[in-house]
Amino acid sequence: MKPTMDKAPMGWNSYDYYDTTVTEEQVKKNADYLAAHLKEYGWEYVVVDIQWYARDAGSRRDQFQYIPFGDMEMDGYGRYQPAVNRFPSSAGGKGFGPLAAYIHDLGLRFGIHIMRGIPRLAAHRHLPVEGTAYTAADTADPASICGWNPDMYGVRDNAAGQAYYDSLVQMYADWGVDYIKCDDICDSWMYRNDSFSGWHETRMLQEAIGKTGRNIVLSLSPGPAHIDRAWQYEKYANMWRITDDFWDRWELLLPMFARCELWQNHVAQGSYPDCDMLPLGRLGKGFGHGERDCNFTKEEQKTMLTLWCIFGSPLMVGAELTKLDEWTRWLLTRKEILKLTGNAYVGRQVERDGQHAVWSCLNRETGERYLALFNLREEEQVLSCDLDEVEQFARRPGSLDGKVKELWSETWVDLEQGKISQPVPAHGTKLYKL
Amino acid sequence: MKPTMDKAPMGWNSYDYYDTTVTEEQVKKNADYLAAHLKEYGWEYVVVDIQWYARDAGSRRDQFQYIPFGDMEMDGYGRYQPAVNRFPSSAGGKGFGPLAAYIHDLGLRFGIHIMRGIPRLAAHRHLPVEGTAYTAADTADPASICGWNPDMYGVRDNAAGQAYYDSLVQMYADWGVDYIKCDDICDSWMYRNDSFSGWHETRMLQEAIGKTGRNIVLSLSPGPAHIDRAWQYEKYANMWRITDDFWDRWELLLPMFARCELWQNHVAQGSYPDCDMLPLGRLGKGFGHGERDCNFTKEEQKTMLTLWCIFGSPLMVGAELTKLDEWTRWLLTRKEILKLTGNAYVGRQVERDGQHAVWSCLNRETGERYLALFNLREEEQVLSCDLDEVEQFARRPGSLDGKVKELWSETWVDLEQGKISQPVPAHGTKLYKL
Amino acid sequence: MKPTMDKAPMGWNSYDYYDTTVTEEQVKKNADYLAAHLKEYGWEYVVVDIQWYARDAGSRRDQFQYIPFGDMEMDGYGRYQPAVNRFPSSAGGKGFGPLAAYIHDLGLRFGIHIMRGIPRLAAHRHLPVEGTAYTAADTADPASICGWNPDMYGVRDNAAGQAYYDSLVQMYADWGVDYIKCDDICDSWMYRNDSFSGWHETRMLQEAIGKTGRNIVLSLSPGPAHIDRAWQYEKYANMWRITDDFWDRWELLLPMFARCELWQNHVAQGSYPDCDMLPLGRLGKGFGHGERDCNFTKEEQKTMLTLWCIFGSPLMVGAELTKLDEWTRWLLTRKEILKLTGNAYVGRQVERDGQHAVWSCLNRETGERYLALFNLREEEQVLSCDLDEVEQFARRPGSLDGKVKELWSETWVDLEQGKISQPVPAHGTKLYKL
Amino acid sequence: MKPTMDKAPMGWNSYDYYDTTVTEEQVKKNADYLAAHLKEYGWEYVVVDIQWYARDAGSRRDQFQYIPFGDMEMDGYGRYQPAVNRFPSSAGGKGFGPLAAYIHDLGLRFGIHIMRGIPRLAAHRHLPVEGTAYTAADTADPASICGWNPDMYGVRDNAAGQAYYDSLVQMYADWGVDYIKCDDICDSWMYRNDSFSGWHETRMLQEAIGKTGRNIVLSLSPGPAHIDRAWQYEKYANMWRITDDFWDRWELLLPMFARCELWQNHVAQGSYPDCDMLPLGRLGKGFGHGERDCNFTKEEQKTMLTLWCIFGSPLMVGAELTKLDEWTRWLLTRKEILKLTGNAYVGRQVERDGQHAVWSCLNRETGERYLALFNLREEEQVLSCDLDEVEQFARRPGSLDGKVKELWSETWVDLEQGKISQPVPAHGTKLYKL
Repeated sequence: MKPTMDKAPMGWNSYDYYDTTVTEEQVKKNADYLAAHLKEYGWEYVVVDIQWYARDAGSRRDQFQYIPFGDMEMDGYGRYQPAVNRFPSSAGGKGFGPLAAYIHDLGLRFGIHIMRGIPRLAAHRHLPVEGTAYTAADTADPASICGWNPDMYGVRDNAAGQAYYDSLVQMYADWGVDYIKCDDICDSWMYRNDSFSGWHETRMLQEAIGKTGRNIVLSLSPGPAHIDRAWQYEKYANMWRITDDFWDRWELLLPMFARCELWQNHVAQGSYPDCDMLPLGRLGKGFGHGERDCNFTKEEQKTMLTLWCIFGSPLMVGAELTKLDEWTRWLLTRKEILKLTGNAYVGRQVERDGQHAVWSCLNRETGERYLALFNLREEEQVLSCDLDEVEQFARRPGSLDGKVKELWSETWVDLEQGKISQPVPAHGTKLYKL
Repeated sequence: MKPTMDKAPMGWNSYDYYDTTVTEEQVKKNADYLAAHLKEYGWEYVVVDIQWYARDAGSRRDQFQYIPFGDMEMDGYGRYQPAVNRFPSSAGGKGFGPLAAYIHDLGLRFGIHIMRGIPRLAAHRHLPVEGTAYTAADTADPASICGWNPDMYGVRDNAAGQAYYDSLVQMYADWGVDYIKCDDICDSWMYRNDSFSGWHETRMLQEAIGKTGRNIVLSLSPGPAHIDRAWQYEKYANMWRITDDFWDRWELLLPMFARCELWQNHVAQGSYPDCDMLPLGRLGKGFGHGERDCNFTKEEQKTMLTLWCIFGSPLMVGAELTKLDEWTRWLLTRKEILKLTGNAYVGRQVERDGQHAVWSCLNRETGERYLALFNLREEEQVLSCDLDEVEQFARRPGSLDGKVKELWSETWVDLEQGKISQPVPAHGTKLYKL
Repeated sequence: MKPTMDKAPMGWNSYDYYDTTVTEEQVKKNADYLAAHLKEYGWEYVVVDIQWYARDAGSRRDQFQYIPFGDMEMDGYGRYQPAVNRFPSSAGGKGFGPLAAYIHDLGLRFGIHIMRGIPRLAAHRHLPVEGTAYTAADTADPASICGWNPDMYGVRDNAAGQAYYDSLVQMYADWGVDYIKCDDICDSWMYRNDSFSGWHETRMLQEAIGKTGRNIVLSLSPGPAHIDRAWQYEKYANMWRITDDFWDRWELLLPMFARCELWQNHVAQGSYPDCDMLPLGRLGKGFGHGERDCNFTKEEQKTMLTLWCIFGSPLMVGAELTKLDEWTRWLLTRKEILKLTGNAYVGRQVERDGQHAVWSCLNRETGERYLALFNLREEEQVLSCDLDEVEQFARRPGSLDGKVKELWSETWVDLEQGKISQPVPAHGTKLYKL
Repeated sequence: MKPTMDKAPMGWNSYDYYDTTVTEEQVKKNADYLAAHLKEYGWEYVVVDIQWYARDAGSRRDQFQYIPFGDMEMDGYGRYQPAVNRFPSSAGGKGFGPLAAYIHDLGLRFGIHIMRGIPRLAAHRHLPVEGTAYTAADTADPASICGWNPDMYGVRDNAAGQAYYDSLVQMYADWGVDYIKCDDICDSWMYRNDSFSGWHETRMLQEAIGKTGRNIVLSLSPGPAHIDRAWQYEKYANMWRITDDFWDRWELLLPMFARCELWQNHVAQGSYPDCDMLPLGRLGKGFGHGERDCNFTKEEQKTMLTLWCIFGSPLMVGAELTKLDEWTRWLLTRKEILKLTGNAYVGRQVERDGQHAVWSCLNRETGERYLALFNLREEEQVLSCDLDEVEQFARRPGSLDGKVKELWSETWVDLEQGKISQPVPAHGTKLYKL
């Protein structure tokens, strides 16, 4: 049985700012900031994203995000190692052990990104699987590749494959890894039929995690996850992406309302449909076009954060933290809003059309009730909700009179005959505690 | 807000035995039996299925299940009426009022089947919509048809359409209808794109029900329902079919395990994914090939009933009740099993592969725990389950030692170190109360 | 065996200007013009397009192109008749006989548009099929409708259905119809599976035509036709649309190059893949937004006409002829270009990419050779073709030196070492006779 | 411009008997037989099929048809070489030169199978492309693989890719190769979208062939080819498979009638839609289940050969020729039937339904006419054809009276009023010269 968790994971991820290029020094500085300024609000994971094993990562960014047949750090058992030129503390075979220790000392948790599978080169070289008579050629499925990253072959659903994953995850556990974000395993847009081997690899990874005895979060990417596979995600993983890569454009934020509608019944203790990173603050330096500020308006940023929280998504901030502006820091420290991601809070869509959405939330332990009004139009409009019509509230009756608090503005408004009716700015949100 | 319910509906439906041909006399006899022998076990709905308005129903069964351009009873406002030759008490414009009263007097509830939409002939005749200046030609969408039944046009999403549905449902409420099974509204296999008008018609029907003030169950057919539309079904209906017409063949029962896996998170108070009728006992008289006994083995019948119950499906028996054999009656009166369909019981799939399935169930009020082992193979096998690995039980710890009761056989077996391990017959089931 | 023809049909069609509203007077004036000014260039068909049987056609154009449950002229055998208010000469049951005679007297041929199937109302009224014991209810398939026009039910593939089509086409032959454009029979975008009854109706219509002994062209709409059904179109029809409705927008003209590539091997004597009407001159009056001039640039108009001709499509002009401007008239009277649609001319794509296309054409009787250079870009570019590389020319060798004539400009250019290399305007064409 | 040919290629292919395992000695023996007994009937190509470069081919046949990460012969420029253990004459870098010379000396032509792309190992090793500064890593597209064979990466559409194909095809030309059967290039069932790189690789291969100046046939596999890509196949290749691998089962032969209907308009000089090998005689030795005789009945064998010929497919026999029985040899030496594959003969389907098919054939130079009646049922039936209704004959009128010859039986039958009407055995064929 997979580990349980008391709330959806929150933390920082290197991808949105650094793409493939982050270094040990940069990770440490972001971790320092997280510990100093955000930890008390629940932010605790520090995640090193894709291709930390590539010595040449980012060096041909005009042509490739992932250089084909590139220069990778790999041990004799076909397991990628941190590139020593980027992560000096890993020298001498110490892997991410020293960096993980540094992060643990800050009271934080350490996560890494991996691609599902086994390095292609390990298979072509017939490298041994540690502690077994198998080789990487027994393990690798040459027909199972990723459509957008050239590093790996999928792992077969056999004893050699399990042995490889066991040896890999045990190494991560020995390093002190707390969180594995496995990529190319949640959706594959590439294969016409369902020959995608990601389905069995999720189970194999969770089995390998179980054998380590370490409490490691398993996060699956990319999305959109397949709702008809919901049971499998819930059984074997802690998080799974319900969208393709999310960035700071309204055209991407708008469909998140439909995705959250779809997955709302599937949020549970230790099982979190994942809306992807929060592209806030300074972004994009590693992507070859220069860094920039978040493109969302402030209203859109509040809308995004409100939806992620009331739905119950994990929260991973993508900003370069050492450059965090006041506004974004304020946004990330709204305790009353962030706590909606806790397990006791159940969010439900009340209604939605092309113009607006309404969500309710109930704390099933305390009975606390929340209501969010989302304006999906390009201009301000008055949004209303009859609280009598909200199914969650009907089941937990209680006074719905008097004043209620809007949490972003910290102002109080009057209920009129059990009804909220308030102007909401373009693409904006009002979130009430009833 | 749609009416709430304290458990998934249970009752009898005329379709599996009578097809389109049932008469008032036959309905009454089945209702009498239900009241006398099954009501105390929770069976309470009596549902008259398709084409009760067709005077010539069944008369050309070798060619047509539904005779095109047939002979229908219809009032001056484009609303079908019971065919008087089949339902004599409806004479004089009394509709189903007298039959509903008879059924209510037995302490039962009365349901009818309808096709979504408005009679085609009403539109071609430009009949008025009762109490309005609209006509059926304003209401009917000539491009919205059913692929398998020729009676109706879909209703437009406009004021005329709502007025028609209001007048229709008010007439049903006046008759005393407690349950509407609306067909051609949950899935349409016909349309290439999503032009299927069923989506808005569900909302319009629920709105019309709300206006009557009567507590009427809304049940949607046929299936399979679309999981990406789950929110809509939950918002506007009480039941929705998750399978196409279900009959007594193992090839149809087997995929129900996948369907229940898919929909398990969507069972809630007043919201019941529907596994379709139970084709038990005497069946098929109206279908033109002579009546017959249920084709399922006894083990398969127990498997079906166990799955329907532990999943939380409504239960509608298809047998001709006046011919009910001892075995089937025994099956339908297992109180300890039937009660799993109550709202307090939450069923979850523990595991499934091509060979077997395991489900657990927890009463969230009392903490009672159940476990079902399903053998999906053609031969007996020993099935085991580590109770430590069952997520529902982990959240509600309690002693898992000693003896547990198998509910079908009413025998007791020993747990061995928190593990059940028992032989299960081919296509059979064991269901334990822990 | 269907009738043969010596070239692809050319003529005028009422749709692009009149939509559903054309009257007898208007048809006659266009026919007069055609006879007087265009007949000598090969234009000979006069086609009355959709809903000539609707008395109220166009009267609710803001809401409907085809009024549902509208006011139709129909005889006692379920056959639509011309609306007498629009076609006065049809009074007294004479149908289109008088109008056909008028057109024949001008030395032209007469065509009408029909929807496949039988009027819905005829089926609901159980009207008799002329000269038989069948009724329209035996003939009509209530599950076979058109997705965009509410008038008809598809005809069943049975003896009743054939009898209906026989009686219908005999009536057309008696009127003097030379050309039937049958709609909703070439592609149906509506049905998810292949239950579309259009496939058998094509065969039934051709069989009915054969029985009349009259040489009637059978033209199928709408498109895009299905290439995997090519044999069927070729066997039973003379023309079939390879595109959805074509209008005067570059976004629609560009994909015609791909469609012509796809169908080029399927042009033969009496079998013409159809690129749809030429939306030239004055257009659009009946469509409710006011009439207008053709939106294509002059270069685009030449590109369209060149492609239609070198490919071998039928040519039907959509302009209101009584308002024909000088330019368009010039365009429609280019004898040397129009003759490429003759049966002896075989067109083939030489090459195509996103920027340009090249077609060659060979007269297989005379050996005449043509080459068209199409510029698909937004700006002028030099296009070249090595005549040695053109497969059609390789098979029919001959001198490729000296001067060649560009047919639109009637200028001569020099070949350079067997190569043409010339500037072509944006979206424009050069067409050479070699 | 690709090479022209005077008829569809005919020859022998090693696959159906040897799978991946054929050796030089075996190829020579089959070539000897071909030269001695079949060459005079038009059979002239000797084709060595898949994985002639694999030293370990067939050694783990219970697990793999193509051993992943297997033991391949490859030169320093990333080009596979014949495995010396299987083709001894290739030792010393002579490749297939000596074997090609042997086959040429017999008056035959030599063909080889290749997989599109570049060996994966060449890319991972960054091997140089001969005569250039490029490496295999510049050439290989790591996202372009074959779904069923693990040997190659697709080649990019860039200068490095063309340089690699140029060096590869020049080597084949130097060896004396006359025919390249390129696999994984005609259809890829693997990719969900059209990212399949096979499309551009066909063009690149033809360009490389052109540069060699050698007349090399380019044959594409596997099928079914995409009819919407017909122009591309015709432009750049000589043959393309219109079916997936064809074997000796009626369920595979029956759909060939639909495939030939689909592609009939696309047979031309140098362009041959390919029905795949003829699985006749002794078959299957290399496939790990023991060799066997052809499973087709004699009637089915005649049906297959008649269809392949009248349609105009290439003919490649799959039998082990040294074990050829009398019957099969008789079948392969029917001169009057085989000549229908010549360029002057044009085959057309006259009609087809689930029970039968009729094809006609016209020699457009001589006017000779043929008619084939195919019985698709499980039992004998009388099939008829009105010769007046055959479109090809209508265009070339001539006497259709008197006696006509059935070519398989070499018997004469009487025409009755221009009609053939004869019994045809189950799954059998009658082929008449008129």
